Amino acid sequence: MSLAAAPLRVEPLTREAFAPFGEVIEADKQHLSFPINAGTSQRFHDLARLDPGQDGRLIVSIFRAQPRPLPFTIALLERHPLASQAFMPLNGTPFLVVVAPRGESVVPDTVRAFLAQGHQGINFAPGVWHHPLLAIGQMSDFLVIDRDEQAGNCEERRLNRPLLLHVEPNLASEAAA
Amino acid sequence: MSLAAAPLRVEPLTREAFAPFGEVIEADKQHLSFPINAGTSQRFHDLARLDPGQDGRLIVSIFRAQPRPLPFTIALLERHPLASQAFMPLNGTPFLVVVAPRGESVVPDTVRAFLAQGHQGINFAPGVWHHPLLAIGQMSDFLVIDRDEQAGNCEERRLNRPLLLHVEPNLASEAAA
Repeated sequence: MSLAAAPLRVEPLTREAFAPFGEVIEADKQHLSFPINAGTSQRFHDLARLDPGQDGRLIVSIFRAQPRPLPFTIALLERHPLASQAFMPLNGTPFLVVVAPRGESVVPDTVRAFLAQGHQGINFAPGVWHHPLLAIGQMSDFLVIDRDEQAGNCEERRLNRPLLLHVEPNLASEAAA
Repeated sequence: MSLAAAPLRVEPLTREAFAPFGEVIEADKQHLSFPINAGTSQRFHDLARLDPGQDGRLIVSIFRAQPRPLPFTIALLERHPLASQAFMPLNGTPFLVVVAPRGESVVPDTVRAFLAQGHQGINFAPGVWHHPLLAIGQMSDFLVIDRDEQAGNCEERRLNRPLLLHVEPNLASEAAA
């Protein structure tokens, strides 16, 4: 017998709300920034705690992600216990971020979903449970900064009850604006 | 007496042409890629030689760059002797990249200029001379991956003769396409 999926509400992505899971990467006026290059650029400085883990090296890759159908069923999460993983959208398109706190198991009640705007990236802290990349609307490219060596750095947990991810119409329209 | 600026031709940005200076960061079918996340994403893997330098840490920042007027006069270049520096456009807008080979001095005849398309980033290898970020057309955001500690990691050289950077109309129209 399979259990019916429980609904999962999608929240707007803010630095404060996402803090238990990592950092939001955006040119946020609240964040440290300063002029460089004779005042022609503003540098929003050091926006995420990149962590390659022991004996790891940070690499940069591009993920080209197919859009997911909505509503979307969350059946499993994964984690990278050794290192951080950062995603930055390159097409200016919103995407979904689903996370759960660190720990050996995933408690469905603690799973949270965020709608990232097209100018917002995220960095998962090491060990944070998260769903694989969730593009929406269109094929989307992301710049990804993570650890080179993935041996021992990816674990999956199937949820004992699936979650159904809706995007509220007002969030979706903010995202499209 | 100031010398008249010599013209500097702008070339299309390709991985091969840029190889002496670093890497082009793009989802290029020539580059190693493989499906991930149950086939929902394609990973273009490890696109640049990120190098934090000795005792350095890689950080991620956003540079918000004002567009430069064209034609633009190149009067100086800079280099980061200790570490690499990568730039990825976030608005899908083209930008200009001006570089010269490693060495103690900058020889004007060896300066080269490239037009990066909006889906192309670049990574400067340590010690490669380059002009500070050259956005064109509109205010542009770039994700930047570089070394945290900048002490001893930035040197400038004024050119003994300035260079005048034009963008050929055919390159500009390709960029806009």
